[in-house]
Amino acid sequence: MVSNSQPVKGNRLDPWLDSYAARARGLRASETRSLFAVASRPEVVSLAGGMPNLKDLPLTEIAQATERMLRRNGASALQYGNGQGLPLLRDLIPHVMAMEGIHAHADDIVVTTGSQQAVDLLTEVFIDPGDVILAEAPTYVGSLGIFNAYEADVHHVPLDADGLIPQALEETIQRLKREGKRVKFLYTLPNFHNPAGVCMSEERRPQIVDICDRHRVLIVEDNPYGLLSFEGRTYTALKDLNPDGVVYLGSFSKIFAPGYRVGWAVAPPAVKEKIKLASEAAILCPSSMGQYSIAMYLNEFDWKAQIEAFRVMYKERRDAMIGALNEYLPYCSWNTPTGGFYTWVGLPEGLDAHEMLPRAITNLVAYVSGTAFYADDQGHDHMRLSFCYPEPAEIHEGIRRLAEVVDAERDLVRIFGPAHHPSPTGIQRPQPDQI
Amino acid sequence: MVSNSQPVKGNRLDPWLDSYAARARGLRASETRSLFAVASRPEVVSLAGGMPNLKDLPLTEIAQATERMLRRNGASALQYGNGQGLPLLRDLIPHVMAMEGIHAHADDIVVTTGSQQAVDLLTEVFIDPGDVILAEAPTYVGSLGIFNAYEADVHHVPLDADGLIPQALEETIQRLKREGKRVKFLYTLPNFHNPAGVCMSEERRPQIVDICDRHRVLIVEDNPYGLLSFEGRTYTALKDLNPDGVVYLGSFSKIFAPGYRVGWAVAPPAVKEKIKLASEAAILCPSSMGQYSIAMYLNEFDWKAQIEAFRVMYKERRDAMIGALNEYLPYCSWNTPTGGFYTWVGLPEGLDAHEMLPRAITNLVAYVSGTAFYADDQGHDHMRLSFCYPEPAEIHEGIRRLAEVVDAERDLVRIFGPAHHPSPTGIQRPQPDQI
Repeated sequence: MVSNSQPVKGNRLDPWLDSYAARARGLRASETRSLFAVASRPEVVSLAGGMPNLKDLPLTEIAQATERMLRRNGASALQYGNGQGLPLLRDLIPHVMAMEGIHAHADDIVVTTGSQQAVDLLTEVFIDPGDVILAEAPTYVGSLGIFNAYEADVHHVPLDADGLIPQALEETIQRLKREGKRVKFLYTLPNFHNPAGVCMSEERRPQIVDICDRHRVLIVEDNPYGLLSFEGRTYTALKDLNPDGVVYLGSFSKIFAPGYRVGWAVAPPAVKEKIKLASEAAILCPSSMGQYSIAMYLNEFDWKAQIEAFRVMYKERRDAMIGALNEYLPYCSWNTPTGGFYTWVGLPEGLDAHEMLPRAITNLVAYVSGTAFYADDQGHDHMRLSFCYPEPAEIHEGIRRLAEVVDAERDLVRIFGPAHHPSPTGIQRPQPDQI
Repeated sequence: MVSNSQPVKGNRLDPWLDSYAARARGLRASETRSLFAVASRPEVVSLAGGMPNLKDLPLTEIAQATERMLRRNGASALQYGNGQGLPLLRDLIPHVMAMEGIHAHADDIVVTTGSQQAVDLLTEVFIDPGDVILAEAPTYVGSLGIFNAYEADVHHVPLDADGLIPQALEETIQRLKREGKRVKFLYTLPNFHNPAGVCMSEERRPQIVDICDRHRVLIVEDNPYGLLSFEGRTYTALKDLNPDGVVYLGSFSKIFAPGYRVGWAVAPPAVKEKIKLASEAAILCPSSMGQYSIAMYLNEFDWKAQIEAFRVMYKERRDAMIGALNEYLPYCSWNTPTGGFYTWVGLPEGLDAHEMLPRAITNLVAYVSGTAFYADDQGHDHMRLSFCYPEPAEIHEGIRRLAEVVDAERDLVRIFGPAHHPSPTGIQRPQPDQI
């Protein structure tokens, strides 16, 4: 007999379960992250990760230059530094930005632990629980994780082959206003979008900036890939169109190396001050060693030629992927990115990228399901394929394996009907002339 | 004539002033931080900073070893890494902890961007606005900045020469319970406390752990200085007394170098998972370069002998400071720390450390006012003097200059009365036999 006088004491696997903050409920492994363990097995061709390919970096020379730097500046490189970032590095960053024709001053720059930390700090500074953030549909999974952790209310705005759609932005802001919701900021990746692979057209940029300015919506312009155009072209930064209305985020992760974790934000003075204080509270200061290493690289190496070499390498991989898609998955839709790391592939009617993923990994190929890039239930009919890390021959083999899985799924759908009725996605399929 | 029909449009220095999150109002420059600019001028003897002294590190050998490491592991050191931290480094950290007799396993460790980030992540994971954190009176200014940013309700618990007072802890928790407040965690620095310079006695440790366990209060044990005892002794970690009830924080900043920004947390499994996810959201992963560098140092250098050398050096500086205090400020009170970086000096009746600081800096000596180390208005009657960075002769000169300022203040107080009526502070003046 079980006595009712005393409550049953079950096992409590986490003794601190009722102590967590509300925001901690939003903390879950991202789809991308939880894949890394499986997808990193050598027999799997990973079209999932966003790791840059570093094999062409002059490692020996970097090692030697690092030794010289430590002999010369070791006492500073190993010490605490300035919370806003090493002045030496902040003086160099405007030269990197100038490569895209962007104007910036060392005083307006805050160096961060990758631009990921900059997104985190901005969200900390601007977002109370329930505040609205606008983001493209789809958008970068890593930023969604941050927005989620701060309990933001993320609303998606559709994009097409020319990037974020101005009219849709205007309508979304107005609709939210009618609902009594204040939009705190628009988070956008204008160049070589992750995951959609598209660029915001020059024509749309002033329109987007104007809409946000009229509605007093801050723009967070995340630009890790802007220098990685396969055609050698760059785009006008939203920041240059309205310096007081835009926080610009840059990163060394894709144009040099992510292992130092060095990115930066350029912000209007008062916002910069808040970001700096939030960063000092969070980490005291960014790594001096990382910053001295980046400054050394910018000072002593032909980093512009290296970026050019990266462009050639990534273009070759993009071509390998598009070629293989044409060969093996002609009934899928995709865009042909003109820069960056990603292709955004639409699946045939009735297929579900999220449900198909385990079968793909069983067939030794990995991708990221489109569902990872939305705050809502969109994206089941898309996959993000990244061509940045595997060799062209591996990309070809990966798409071949992927096609086996997609073919089998199509047969299943033909016989049994769709496993999942995907919601309509925000992104419009690219038109044939854009492929 | 001024028309009233239209509102006057004044200058708006910060166009985003009404967009910030509530927590951003708590972001202000810490007293320590805003001092750095002035105190770093070469003519000022700074007894303010907490920068470790790195001049005895074998920089040339570290530079050479870093070159070898980059030649060997550069492709990994420059790449993204594991969100929980490099397994190679996580395997080594338990050996560092074993130096203090602490037990830990690589699986339970999360590597962070300095232990500062660990405090930030824990606060993010546990604290909703208004939640209660208990902290010693006084406590580390950097953690107060974080607690403030997350809008925590910080309550201080007094300490004395034997550290946090168990009875006061019990009473504080019970009082808060009666007020309907749930205490989320106790933040404590048991060893060589910053700023108080005291150690929690062995006798009190199980008492503190027991009180927290009974009231289901998580303990956050911050231990950056535990290996820097001047007597070569170590203390039982609270973590070892109750592994499921304590999150332990360690750091390489004081036993090796802070420029890599590498610290770590050891946490119960479910809490560790939350910290890891929060860290991945915030920064994706800690710097691979920093982690490989620390692992290289632990593997190739006699880091235990280096810690011994640090101990000898810091002891010499402690002696210089205590000697100078005896010589120049005999009417002040202070404790003689047996490790770490700091002495906590009580001013004569009626003097205010906060108000005196500009005059001290004018006299070319800097310290941190005791007020920086409290969430409330305590601390006016104390200064934190750090002996970690300046040479013994500089320390002597700094205290001499400080005594000139204190003497002049005493004269003013004698003539005009106290400028400020300091609140009673939580820390009890050390008894004569403890000096």
